[in-house]
Amino acid sequence: MTTGPHLPHRLQPLLAPRSIALVGASDNPGRIGGMPLDLLRHFAFAGAVYPVNPKYEEVFGYRCYPDIESLPEACDLVVLAIAAPEVTAMLERCHARGIPAAIVYAAGFAEAAGEGLTLQRTLEAFAQRSGMVVAGPNCMGFANLNLHAYTAFASVFKNVPLQTGPGRASIVTQSGNVCSAVFALARRLGVPVSHFINTGNEACVEFSEYLEYLAQDDATECVVGYVEQLRNGPRFIDAALAFARKRKPLILYKAGETDKGSEAVRSHTSALAGDLALYKAAFEQLNVIRGTDFAQMADLAYLSGFRARQGGPRVAIVTMSGALGAILADKFIGAGLEVPTLSDDLQRTLREGIPDYGMVSNPVDVTGNVVNSPQFVRTILGALAQSDQVDTVVVYAPGYLLDRMAEPLVEVCGQWNKLVVAIDTGAATCRDQLAQAGVPVFDDIGRATQALAPFCQWLARHEAVARWAALRQAQAVESGTPPVLPAALNEHATKLLLAGYGVPSLQGLPARDADEAVHAAGQLGYPVALKILSADIAHKTEVGGVRLNVADAQALRRHCEDMLANVQRHSPAARIDGFLVQPMASGGVAELIAGITHDPVFGPALTVGLGGVLTELYRDASHRLLPVDAAMVQTMLRELRAWPLLDGFRGRPLADVAGACEGIAALSRAQAALGPQVREIEINPLQVRAQGQGAFALDALVVVQD
Amino acid sequence: MTTGPHLPHRLQPLLAPRSIALVGASDNPGRIGGMPLDLLRHFAFAGAVYPVNPKYEEVFGYRCYPDIESLPEACDLVVLAIAAPEVTAMLERCHARGIPAAIVYAAGFAEAAGEGLTLQRTLEAFAQRSGMVVAGPNCMGFANLNLHAYTAFASVFKNVPLQTGPGRASIVTQSGNVCSAVFALARRLGVPVSHFINTGNEACVEFSEYLEYLAQDDATECVVGYVEQLRNGPRFIDAALAFARKRKPLILYKAGETDKGSEAVRSHTSALAGDLALYKAAFEQLNVIRGTDFAQMADLAYLSGFRARQGGPRVAIVTMSGALGAILADKFIGAGLEVPTLSDDLQRTLREGIPDYGMVSNPVDVTGNVVNSPQFVRTILGALAQSDQVDTVVVYAPGYLLDRMAEPLVEVCGQWNKLVVAIDTGAATCRDQLAQAGVPVFDDIGRATQALAPFCQWLARHEAVARWAALRQAQAVESGTPPVLPAALNEHATKLLLAGYGVPSLQGLPARDADEAVHAAGQLGYPVALKILSADIAHKTEVGGVRLNVADAQALRRHCEDMLANVQRHSPAARIDGFLVQPMASGGVAELIAGITHDPVFGPALTVGLGGVLTELYRDASHRLLPVDAAMVQTMLRELRAWPLLDGFRGRPLADVAGACEGIAALSRAQAALGPQVREIEINPLQVRAQGQGAFALDALVVVQD
Repeated sequence: MTTGPHLPHRLQPLLAPRSIALVGASDNPGRIGGMPLDLLRHFAFAGAVYPVNPKYEEVFGYRCYPDIESLPEACDLVVLAIAAPEVTAMLERCHARGIPAAIVYAAGFAEAAGEGLTLQRTLEAFAQRSGMVVAGPNCMGFANLNLHAYTAFASVFKNVPLQTGPGRASIVTQSGNVCSAVFALARRLGVPVSHFINTGNEACVEFSEYLEYLAQDDATECVVGYVEQLRNGPRFIDAALAFARKRKPLILYKAGETDKGSEAVRSHTSALAGDLALYKAAFEQLNVIRGTDFAQMADLAYLSGFRARQGGPRVAIVTMSGALGAILADKFIGAGLEVPTLSDDLQRTLREGIPDYGMVSNPVDVTGNVVNSPQFVRTILGALAQSDQVDTVVVYAPGYLLDRMAEPLVEVCGQWNKLVVAIDTGAATCRDQLAQAGVPVFDDIGRATQALAPFCQWLARHEAVARWAALRQAQAVESGTPPVLPAALNEHATKLLLAGYGVPSLQGLPARDADEAVHAAGQLGYPVALKILSADIAHKTEVGGVRLNVADAQALRRHCEDMLANVQRHSPAARIDGFLVQPMASGGVAELIAGITHDPVFGPALTVGLGGVLTELYRDASHRLLPVDAAMVQTMLRELRAWPLLDGFRGRPLADVAGACEGIAALSRAQAALGPQVREIEINPLQVRAQGQGAFALDALVVVQD
Repeated sequence: MTTGPHLPHRLQPLLAPRSIALVGASDNPGRIGGMPLDLLRHFAFAGAVYPVNPKYEEVFGYRCYPDIESLPEACDLVVLAIAAPEVTAMLERCHARGIPAAIVYAAGFAEAAGEGLTLQRTLEAFAQRSGMVVAGPNCMGFANLNLHAYTAFASVFKNVPLQTGPGRASIVTQSGNVCSAVFALARRLGVPVSHFINTGNEACVEFSEYLEYLAQDDATECVVGYVEQLRNGPRFIDAALAFARKRKPLILYKAGETDKGSEAVRSHTSALAGDLALYKAAFEQLNVIRGTDFAQMADLAYLSGFRARQGGPRVAIVTMSGALGAILADKFIGAGLEVPTLSDDLQRTLREGIPDYGMVSNPVDVTGNVVNSPQFVRTILGALAQSDQVDTVVVYAPGYLLDRMAEPLVEVCGQWNKLVVAIDTGAATCRDQLAQAGVPVFDDIGRATQALAPFCQWLARHEAVARWAALRQAQAVESGTPPVLPAALNEHATKLLLAGYGVPSLQGLPARDADEAVHAAGQLGYPVALKILSADIAHKTEVGGVRLNVADAQALRRHCEDMLANVQRHSPAARIDGFLVQPMASGGVAELIAGITHDPVFGPALTVGLGGVLTELYRDASHRLLPVDAAMVQTMLRELRAWPLLDGFRGRPLADVAGACEGIAALSRAQAALGPQVREIEINPLQVRAQGQGAFALDALVVVQD
């Protein structure tokens, strides 16, 4: 889908138009047919502007045309400020006139259901057929602030500080209100904006295509977005990886964080939101920063201007107050950053200028005395900037205290590329000077924390994303023709199938009847586990299809008989292949559950958790988009709050984590090889034994696509 | 400790001085001996001011005295701007002069350790002996803004908007920097401040005594505070309950939220922070609002001005944008509020004026159209204000859209007392008008959420706090002379002791030897559990002192022999009383752990959790200060994330929650009756059987104070 580096992207006429027509033009700047014309005039768009309306000769100083056919040229972009039922017919005419791109403001399409849905289907079919690039409908329009190309009916542009330098942050949202709100906040922070994009119903151009464009747009150094529904998961993944590759922050607020939020979103866009836990995991995996607040998103756009500096989650805190140091440490650690205790050597260096009652362990409390000695501040900051014990330095000093430190701060930041951040809750005069020198300045501890924590994590994730992108690339090359699976597999067949991809299991012996079961048990040795064997029964326990600790042949025969009766009573339609006889699986340190599901947005994904009922209650699970390798699985296991159970908690033996990781990673290979015919794969439980003794699927399930 | 309503509180001369002396006066407004005098002059303190310094005749227009003895009167308050070693001697002279209260600025006391610690002990001894009220040392001083009585060396007072009306919010902090920072934020929000109090080292007057004063201070309608260490838990509880009784919000930031934060705090004040989980629980129990951010604390002080309105956690959201509704719902639910779906009836009422594409279920999306019809806005808001389905109404409308709704908002708030909150991310001109009418206005969604959530919860907790205060009062009356306990009790004696207070347990039969054990088992019936019986062994399993499922007499004899050998090998010094033979406890739905510990700050507290290793990993426990009753225990159990296990999760039987609650509440009675000689009581596990079948301590432990 991505165009080559030398071909213009197909969205170019939409997002960087050289000439703009507006159908339904008005001479009233308060109406949607007038507002964009007023903005184009006000901000002096350099290209041609063609208002279209037979009622006027001229509007806002632009010559007005009676119809689209009478324009002197095929302009790049037409904006339709007309009612929904007229839209597609007008687009046909614009297309015939040779106009490649359009924006449709009108509401009353899919979001209104009923007749609107039909109108949207017609519009989609036209766009598909014609290849015309149609944005919206039900959107507020766009602005390319570097070109002064305003096609949005939004009053916000005149109400914020005027932008002088080139814009570098782009805003893309599925809601016009959110677009305006985030834009206003970013501008008030002084962040120069390049693109303002409200995508609306996305009938023809969807969210990720805008991202694709912006990833390769030189005027976009970061994107701040709001999304209710991603309609094209694979393209989103590609776009996010392009952002990651170019080290441009992609900051997205995903609506539907809670059930109630989802409900509101569904009613709003008739959208089915993907599973939230997987969204979070996917964002982290793709190094997409999760927006949590408009102010935080604006702050992140501000921080993006400092993305070339080296930073990360291990923070050194420098303050003049023990209390503030404690508060900052609380906040940072609470937000997922680290405040490591500094080495004795480094503490000794810091101690040389800090009085006894100050602190040097981190937080570093230089005490109020130190502002009298800029040379000493330089030494402290220099030592921290050079140290490999911390990734980021945060200096908290209110007002004039920060001013006293400005000079050494600027000097140190000129000398070393480490990220140094200042927080000033007073009214320091050095703020601009610091920002110029590469030091972002915040005026609130809470806001600093909320933006800094995800930004530092973003800085630290570049390598992991690149690694995953390479793994994904490699798998795309590898995948061959998958074997064709039957509609359903019984447990024995499932374990054999998965074994071929390297998933170890306690396979056991299949038996057609009680005699064969007794024979099998004789080979395995008692006690054994007895299970019903049927491709039609996914949950054996619920139908009385599992007996553990069967002690001898007599008991085994009795169980075979009872089990068959039970199962036939519970599931009369199930085809029974017989029994599976397994050795009793003792010796496990822990039992995991590992499963692959198919997310409607992101495609195949892996979930790993500790087995059992409590894990479900505590929602202690880790998710990843596929593919994964063993190293990624290990990271997933370490993310579990139950991880200590695998790691020698309270004198337990260490579990065979390596074995578990290999076994789970093999599921990813199985999914890749079997392809979309497989809807789900689950191992439950995966018994993890003590270190060196492996991990084995005690049960396994493959659900084949209907 | 509390003085009667007609006697002035002993802190009155400190916090509402009619006359102030300053020893160590300076004529330089930049020095600590000059700054307060400059402020007193600048803000025109009406009382007498006596600078003391033989160097000057006059400073800041005040006559200066050579020494404290030459003052024309015994003033209310003396401020000492002199070095630490001179402090106590000077206090002696001030005391001799008849001055009842003093503030000590000097650092170099306990916080500096070594010699400083000695200085502080001397100071404490003097204050104790003399009865003089001494604030600090190592403090920045105070300000009573209503009296213009400035005794703080803080530059912040001149740098914030001038306060015209009477102050109503007081600020009390253990850190001077935090005091200034919170004061500045509150003033910038327009919150009028009454007291500015920095408590410093609290050698003689500690944090909770200030709270005690402020609870009864008419000029204080809320307190915003910062605390690293509470030195007097019982007085804090009394003070917090006084705030609750008067419905004044008490908002406290507790430093040491994370281990790193605690470390910084310990170094800062040599303070041992109490257990954080218990702090959180105690704050909630006492209806103290936890501050999480200076901005949030200032916002809560602002909200406190609206505390007379009726509100609570069930919020109706009214917006003009589905997206914003979804975002607000996400935020509110994430912060612990509820966004209930409205009844069909109420939805029908709302639907009458809302277009089809708007939403009426909650969030309510009135759509942009509605601002043209103020009458309709009035109907919607009126319907929500009257409804008992929601406690609080939040209206989000940016800029002019909020202005359009201002009139109906004011009208509705005049008619009904329900809390209605507005959020305006634009620049509405109606903000002051709304605030006057009782509608707080926020300009950021995140900040609104962070303050509103705890405030709504505070509004809803009045009843629970009153109930607990009554329970505590009743218990204080009841408690008689406790029985004297031996230094240690074995399991059987422990269970008997607790049974006396109503704690049910599987008591079993004690046996001195194997013969008696076999006899006991014969009475109980096999299988039985066998345990070692010794007051010296708290953790029986770890010394091989427990055998479950003993099937017959032969096995029992063997186990008795083995067990005795094991235990004697592991704990040769333990006195063995014999064995405890118990019936095997089958039939439990869940096992809980319930324990009473003695918190160094708050005293006896109850912890309840699900038994087992995972609960510890997930830190799934609930805490309360004692006393508790069965209803409170039930609330605690419902707070557990594992609660569904007791409540029929996935087809399990319902547990006997009532029985469990009675049993656990009995622990509270036991603690009350046994008094401080008991350090810990623990039931682990408490086996909870199916509904109607009770709950039983399978094991129990009482640790007697050394």
